[in-house]
Amino acid sequence: MKVLDEGYVKLVEHWGGDEAIIEAARMSTNKGFKGWPEDERLLSYLYRNKHATPFEMAGFVIEVKAPLFVFREWHRHRTQSYNEMSARYVPLPDENYLPTVDRLMGVNRETANKQAQGKGGLSGNQAEEWLHRLSHFYEYAQWLYEDGLEKGVSKEVARVCVPVGRYSRMRAGANLRNWLGFLSLRMADDAQWEIRQYANAVGSIVSELFPRTWQLFSERG
Amino acid sequence: MKVLDEGYVKLVEHWGGDEAIIEAARMSTNKGFKGWPEDERLLSYLYRNKHATPFEMAGFVIEVKAPLFVFREWHRHRTQSYNEMSARYVPLPDENYLPTVDRLMGVNRETANKQAQGKGGLSGNQAEEWLHRLSHFYEYAQWLYEDGLEKGVSKEVARVCVPVGRYSRMRAGANLRNWLGFLSLRMADDAQWEIRQYANAVGSIVSELFPRTWQLFSERG
Amino acid sequence: MKVLDEGYVKLVEHWGGDEAIIEAARMSTNKGFKGWPEDERLLSYLYRNKHATPFEMAGFVIEVKAPLFVFREWHRHRTQSYNEMSARYVPLPDENYLPTVDRLMGVNRETANKQAQGKGGLSGNQAEEWLHRLSHFYEYAQWLYEDGLEKGVSKEVARVCVPVGRYSRMRAGANLRNWLGFLSLRMADDAQWEIRQYANAVGSIVSELFPRTWQLFSERG
Amino acid sequence: MKVLDEGYVKLVEHWGGDEAIIEAARMSTNKGFKGWPEDERLLSYLYRNKHATPFEMAGFVIEVKAPLFVFREWHRHRTQSYNEMSARYVPLPDENYLPTVDRLMGVNRETANKQAQGKGGLSGNQAEEWLHRLSHFYEYAQWLYEDGLEKGVSKEVARVCVPVGRYSRMRAGANLRNWLGFLSLRMADDAQWEIRQYANAVGSIVSELFPRTWQLFSERG
Repeated sequence: MKVLDEGYVKLVEHWGGDEAIIEAARMSTNKGFKGWPEDERLLSYLYRNKHATPFEMAGFVIEVKAPLFVFREWHRHRTQSYNEMSARYVPLPDENYLPTVDRLMGVNRETANKQAQGKGGLSGNQAEEWLHRLSHFYEYAQWLYEDGLEKGVSKEVARVCVPVGRYSRMRAGANLRNWLGFLSLRMADDAQWEIRQYANAVGSIVSELFPRTWQLFSERG
Repeated sequence: MKVLDEGYVKLVEHWGGDEAIIEAARMSTNKGFKGWPEDERLLSYLYRNKHATPFEMAGFVIEVKAPLFVFREWHRHRTQSYNEMSARYVPLPDENYLPTVDRLMGVNRETANKQAQGKGGLSGNQAEEWLHRLSHFYEYAQWLYEDGLEKGVSKEVARVCVPVGRYSRMRAGANLRNWLGFLSLRMADDAQWEIRQYANAVGSIVSELFPRTWQLFSERG
Repeated sequence: MKVLDEGYVKLVEHWGGDEAIIEAARMSTNKGFKGWPEDERLLSYLYRNKHATPFEMAGFVIEVKAPLFVFREWHRHRTQSYNEMSARYVPLPDENYLPTVDRLMGVNRETANKQAQGKGGLSGNQAEEWLHRLSHFYEYAQWLYEDGLEKGVSKEVARVCVPVGRYSRMRAGANLRNWLGFLSLRMADDAQWEIRQYANAVGSIVSELFPRTWQLFSERG
Repeated sequence: MKVLDEGYVKLVEHWGGDEAIIEAARMSTNKGFKGWPEDERLLSYLYRNKHATPFEMAGFVIEVKAPLFVFREWHRHRTQSYNEMSARYVPLPDENYLPTVDRLMGVNRETANKQAQGKGGLSGNQAEEWLHRLSHFYEYAQWLYEDGLEKGVSKEVARVCVPVGRYSRMRAGANLRNWLGFLSLRMADDAQWEIRQYANAVGSIVSELFPRTWQLFSERG
């Protein structure tokens, strides 16, 4: 699933399902899964009343390619498991996030977060000019990075010049409860547009793997 | 898998495997799984150097039936997910843990924990006498419990007379890293004999699902 | 702070305060605490918009004496730290929870949880009769426990006959964010009446240590 | 406490102490703190036998100023609480990490991590040349950043050109158990030299606040 200009989200593995959630919840009353649609009422009850632990009995692992500044926000979710490419061990590939003119001009800016806004009034020409400079800057950063590596500067030090627009890759795993927590913060209007695109991609994975839970999440947040 | 007189451990679901651990670890160097036995060196390296996060990319869920005092110890492991039968909602079945004469006499007492020891010198007759009394006591407890429920005492209050030898059931899920943490504490010599039997059963699940990781755990703890 | 017939909640130590929450939140904008009441708006903003991490920068540790069945519920809160008296190491003191006649008759039953209800219609005489039997049962349990210990049954085994109405003691620590999570589940109408009394006591500690946060919690849940 | 060229570590607040650890541990045997040096044996016993929960009953909060690449490593420690300056809300100050010539030449390179090494053989002249270029690059990055902000590019987008050598600030809090976990990974030989300087600074805070625990940590790791 392509995200931004060079990124993606890819399902690696999942476990459990809407049914496993019901079965786990029924431990409390010593019963099991009865069948859909009958058990949709229980699923809805669990969701509405924040009986969250049964939603820990399912989950999935994804692979993500995203810019460093997106990963910086992502890693604040401390209930996920992460394994990321490390610039200590391998030179990061020369792939960088170049926003679109529309993104710069705020055409796709749905964010409700006032503090994060630009002052607006950016013209198309100005946007193009800055993106041109950014693109040039990325090349310069890469040149300096390689210059360091070639001279014999260690990878872990040479990376100090890598900009946070640089792409990296990771695996991220969590149970469904924690994925929903991630989604409710990162699909929100005040989340940064870029991470929201990733959250939407994760959301579409949830909608396929856990359609009944997804419906409850969509309706109730 | 039968444990103690009335308990069991049963695999519900698992995800990942030794290979998924390697793949996750290789994110850091931008490579993937190469194959066994070649990648056993990397697995061993990860394990020895406590690079623990790749071991979070696999895991499993089990169903457990055990006495309450075992669950009391189990639930101190705060990185697992739990859904347990609740005496607020259903009357607990009348099943209780009756230790064997051997257990009482310390024949199978390998525990290294001095404080938990009895003063010893318990004769076979004394053991039998106490177990006889315990068995009678369990009946009395059950009678009082039912008497309360029948009179109209709510389930959540009537349960105060339930002894911690009473069996309950739960589902427990965790990733492999955290299961290994559980095992290293609960398979240890100073763990109580009863929870050790459960830990051994969990261990045999790990050995089947993750044979290479299990071997490292067995050798190195 | 006395709770139930023999229990208590006691503050051991705390750190941070409403002010520390503001200071932590202001890290994001590179500013500090400005003063009350001005900063109440920011505190309220953080609370309403679930910017929860600043509330992790304060917290407290308490000592609690409560029946085992209350601790069983309490320990499901996996973000707290616990150190409890252990029946493996010391014989549990002979103190047991004896509900009141009113509690049995549901006079103080505000719980919204239908499944936990008794069938009602319990007369005062019946309640007294059952409590009388319970009290006798507690004596019997204690006699059997001591009989085992005296015979030489180890403490960790002899305890199987201890009823979940028996009192134990622990220290519990958490940051404020997690204490509020505990309170919102355990002060709720569908929480069991007994743990609700403990949650109320914890709530009154919060109200003294963090009055502004407490006000937001009280108004908004 | 100054760290690197522009960074620091500063204690904000702490709670508990070596004594509180003993008191928490003594909950299990229903006793309290007896006094030093007598209780040093218990502290040592707890530490050696990985009875880790009492060490959760103390902790501290610090303020840290460090380059982004250090924070990227730091934030992998998911049991700490973080509040960091956000480039979505404020322009990051123009402060950047400039390694020393010695650092580049590996004079202070004690790391055992082969993969992170440079190929060595870097001359003093080459090191100076690269640092000169890096310094110039930092200026260029800042110019581009400001150019974007001035044109009206939003802060959250303009930041894509910020290099990971840029300084940021945060508060970080954890209990002592988790701080020790951080230290044992980040004071280790195979940790990157830069984060090791921060870990050393945190270590010196531990040594002052919890001298007896620190001694055990220093001796046993």
